[in-house]
Amino acid sequence: MCGIVGYIGNRDAFPIVLKGLKRLEYRGYDSAGIALINDDRLSVFKKQGKVDALEEFTIGKNLSGNIGIGHTRWATHGEPSDRNAHPHYTNSKKFAIIHNGIIENYAQIKAELISKGYVFHSDTDTEVLGNFIEDIYTNLPNKSVEEAIRFALKRIVGAYCILVVHEDEPEVIYAARKGSPLVIGIGKGEHFLASDATPIIEYTREVVYVNDYEMAIVRKDELILKNLGNERQEPYITKLDMQLGAIEKGGYDHFMIKEILEQPSTIFDCLRGRLETQNPSIQLSGIDKYKEQFLTGQRIIILACGTSWHAGLVAEYIIEELCRIPVEVEYASEFRYRNPVVHSGDIIVAISQSGETADTIVAIDQAKKNGAIIMGVVNAVGSTIARLSDTGVYTHSGPEIGVASTKAFTGQVTVLILVALKVALEKGTITKERFNQLCIELAGVPDKVQEIFVQNDHINKIAQKYSHLKDALYLGRGYNFPIALEGALKLKEISYIHAEGYPAAEMKHGPIALVDESLLSVFIATKDPYYEKIISNIQEIKARKGMVLAIVSKGDTMISGIADDIIEIPEIDELIAPILNVIPLQLLSYYIGVAKGFDVDKPRNLAKSVTVE
Amino acid sequence: MCGIVGYIGNRDAFPIVLKGLKRLEYRGYDSAGIALINDDRLSVFKKQGKVDALEEFTIGKNLSGNIGIGHTRWATHGEPSDRNAHPHYTNSKKFAIIHNGIIENYAQIKAELISKGYVFHSDTDTEVLGNFIEDIYTNLPNKSVEEAIRFALKRIVGAYCILVVHEDEPEVIYAARKGSPLVIGIGKGEHFLASDATPIIEYTREVVYVNDYEMAIVRKDELILKNLGNERQEPYITKLDMQLGAIEKGGYDHFMIKEILEQPSTIFDCLRGRLETQNPSIQLSGIDKYKEQFLTGQRIIILACGTSWHAGLVAEYIIEELCRIPVEVEYASEFRYRNPVVHSGDIIVAISQSGETADTIVAIDQAKKNGAIIMGVVNAVGSTIARLSDTGVYTHSGPEIGVASTKAFTGQVTVLILVALKVALEKGTITKERFNQLCIELAGVPDKVQEIFVQNDHINKIAQKYSHLKDALYLGRGYNFPIALEGALKLKEISYIHAEGYPAAEMKHGPIALVDESLLSVFIATKDPYYEKIISNIQEIKARKGMVLAIVSKGDTMISGIADDIIEIPEIDELIAPILNVIPLQLLSYYIGVAKGFDVDKPRNLAKSVTVE
Repeated sequence: MCGIVGYIGNRDAFPIVLKGLKRLEYRGYDSAGIALINDDRLSVFKKQGKVDALEEFTIGKNLSGNIGIGHTRWATHGEPSDRNAHPHYTNSKKFAIIHNGIIENYAQIKAELISKGYVFHSDTDTEVLGNFIEDIYTNLPNKSVEEAIRFALKRIVGAYCILVVHEDEPEVIYAARKGSPLVIGIGKGEHFLASDATPIIEYTREVVYVNDYEMAIVRKDELILKNLGNERQEPYITKLDMQLGAIEKGGYDHFMIKEILEQPSTIFDCLRGRLETQNPSIQLSGIDKYKEQFLTGQRIIILACGTSWHAGLVAEYIIEELCRIPVEVEYASEFRYRNPVVHSGDIIVAISQSGETADTIVAIDQAKKNGAIIMGVVNAVGSTIARLSDTGVYTHSGPEIGVASTKAFTGQVTVLILVALKVALEKGTITKERFNQLCIELAGVPDKVQEIFVQNDHINKIAQKYSHLKDALYLGRGYNFPIALEGALKLKEISYIHAEGYPAAEMKHGPIALVDESLLSVFIATKDPYYEKIISNIQEIKARKGMVLAIVSKGDTMISGIADDIIEIPEIDELIAPILNVIPLQLLSYYIGVAKGFDVDKPRNLAKSVTVE
Repeated sequence: MCGIVGYIGNRDAFPIVLKGLKRLEYRGYDSAGIALINDDRLSVFKKQGKVDALEEFTIGKNLSGNIGIGHTRWATHGEPSDRNAHPHYTNSKKFAIIHNGIIENYAQIKAELISKGYVFHSDTDTEVLGNFIEDIYTNLPNKSVEEAIRFALKRIVGAYCILVVHEDEPEVIYAARKGSPLVIGIGKGEHFLASDATPIIEYTREVVYVNDYEMAIVRKDELILKNLGNERQEPYITKLDMQLGAIEKGGYDHFMIKEILEQPSTIFDCLRGRLETQNPSIQLSGIDKYKEQFLTGQRIIILACGTSWHAGLVAEYIIEELCRIPVEVEYASEFRYRNPVVHSGDIIVAISQSGETADTIVAIDQAKKNGAIIMGVVNAVGSTIARLSDTGVYTHSGPEIGVASTKAFTGQVTVLILVALKVALEKGTITKERFNQLCIELAGVPDKVQEIFVQNDHINKIAQKYSHLKDALYLGRGYNFPIALEGALKLKEISYIHAEGYPAAEMKHGPIALVDESLLSVFIATKDPYYEKIISNIQEIKARKGMVLAIVSKGDTMISGIADDIIEIPEIDELIAPILNVIPLQLLSYYIGVAKGFDVDKPRNLAKSVTVE
């Protein structure tokens, strides 16, 4: 959350920074702003709203300058407004600062600064940090911006990625990170700074990922990295492997629908080179490397947040069933603050699309200290979690720009099924027959996802019918319980309808009190051993006059006679069904969001990768 | 769910059965009905709505008869209506049947019966079972009702407690159970049958708990128990230890408020004889019996549903912290249908207020087969789970009649803290100092709960303010995350407001999209290590103009400056705080429910003990 961009070189900074902000807008879009240095003069332009509002606001203004830093915000302290937008001036108006993260001890520092006469023009913790740096700078005998930043960063508690410019040093951008991501692109006589690589790839493919507690002193033709102890660090240059087309909409109305429809090919990419169906086998070098540990591991702990947490729940059911290893799925945010029981030899699976989820990063850091092995299931190549993990399996879903995660989720579940199958075969907890069967079924998933899309118009019609909804329950059992949670989350995110997921049998322990004529219950009711029980649950809802939409197996006549609406899914083994069953729920949310006229790629209040805690 | 009552003796059956139904109404109140046998003639009275509606409907009718069976329904198959109400006649009108449970293969049996010419007057599975018995009866050469029932029960799939009467045998009530509870009270020349003991205690204290797969042939002066193999079973007579006053409202408007306000004494009762504070120690014979297993156990699996599941989540945090044993909390309904990994020596903790929760019963049955030790945390003495468990600790909360569980929850958490403390001390994973401190803090809980009640008027005012609410989020971290879930569940159950609980940090991964001026976020934000983080979360909500109600520690000035409303909780160790923090959330739900004019003891669609799957 919060996107950060910087440019220093010979070109005009403004258009580059502005375009970069648009690429990063999925990270937050409460307000946006840009600071430029032109002829040794610092100027700041900022505006509440999306980046478009900033662009409009700057029309006709003098936007020259070869140094620029920009920010698109997801509010933490202080409501979205012009004054709370970044960059923030300091009191002298010589410094400008942008920041992604949360300074936790800001209140105390602010009080100190106020007692020294500082005045604040916003409610943000960022402005406090800026003036704190300024105050240190003013009192330093040698007036070094670099030293002032270093001093300040040592005293603050919290997470940050900051960019700082100073009028008196119109040839430098200072940057530093702890807990929030930062990539620096290396051009010819120019440098690009950003929260992720998407604003950079059209200019250069050579990048440096800045590490926690590192500071970058960036000139157009020089990049210096130091740790907070003022020791030089060697920049490690990585080559980007990403296509520009992958981060553009390519004719679709929204990234979200583009990404939903991409799933046959992203799942295929995820399986490619890993799943062999002729003589069924699975290649995963990330598992081979730690084979012994997977075979002897007494416990797997899955750490994740949001949609990735749901993928983890699906994996819990599948891994326990196939590998007979107890699995615990934890919210990373909860795990990290407890004193959880982790033993040496436990396997931690960290799931994150962006690989930058703040809580997940800290959580795996902690588990590592207890001697656990970390396996990352990450989409963004080279991201922090990918680098922190001992081993990992990428989901290969391509850049996901839509704020509501779709293809990354099916990629995560696919990877986790591959892992479970491979470990189960090695452990001997699955027969070769069942393994072969599941491999073949898995290989058929891309085509079956495509088959679901034949019903898109039908799903859109259902979406129109229910677009007035206020409340919904999503209910499933077994492998499909997490799909109920994920379906409900999608609807919440995109349509702002209060949807809630539950294991179907829990309905009677409270949630059924919500059922009346105006509430929709969405049942995931494809054929599996729970089928009869799910029908009883549907009967219980219908007995109370609730509306029912059911996701059913193709040709189901039993439920179609009871439910108000149905969506059909091709027959598939129940263990793999979650990948298919989530697809219509993604589409339903998308179409309802569009029907309600919402910007589904930028749902209110949200941001994509949650890089604050 | 569904309450069943029967009487056979020399008194008028109707008033006894009617009064019994009122006592059991917490189990369901969609419709009610009574069948009587008078002068060898069977008559049935039934009505949609609560038992009061039935009573009104029967005014002026001939209600004589010394044999009666009655039913108050929680609908599973078929909407609540007169025709779907129990008892159901069979086609000959000679049989009447009442039933609690679900017959899963009813559709197939119904089709067979229809092909034989049977006609159905309701949508229920019960009527199918009744006619199935009749069909068998008709074709038996010896025309034995007993044999017909036995035959039928062997062919059906599902759960049941049934009572059957037949016009040609006006001196017998037939009863049978599998998965749904049944108690028979033994009087002088009379017998009382019921789903639990509450309708019985004013007549007799001697009862027999019927077991699964048992059938009872009940005459006024004879009680015969048989298994389905037609072998006689010796009835095991138990003495009831329950006060009549405990199951009456005693001057309060509702059972719910009575039970909330009882908590200082129910928690005290739960601690009494177990917690010693002079020289701090804990006596729990249920743990002593299996001490070795608790000290060496590698894993604890907690099985529960609904509110009890929330108590289990609190326990997970506490047991892991104090005892360093990994804990997994499972929905019983999910656990039982999977093939979960359970090893010999694992400890299963089953939590259930009623001790009759169907899914939990089956789940522990399964775990037992894998060699796990079962510890029950149950309120109802002598209930099925109490009897199935290897060991256990009663919560001693007294009968809980309000459908929304309150005092049972705090009893469960109290018991689980006692267990964790005792095991931790024995294992040496807690210092004696910390143990002593927690014992003393725990002993202070009843007084501190009482202290919270000083704010009842204040909480009622807040309830009035928010009674128009449509949606709410309940947010907490750590020990208070499950309290957020429980608070949300209470509001759903009693006020039909769509409230949802989340770990506070997960908010940013989706739910925050719901936040606008009309949504209330309830934060549990008492002083603990998460305090600073929770403040950041509150800021994030306020930045998006959401309303905030915070449960805070007494004297908190920081949050009172940010939140719209606060409720104060006496200072207490964070580990024990959940017991206190849930109290204002119970009160808030109660007052909002009352403000909205709802019958808070009988919330729509719900029933107390969930004895169907």
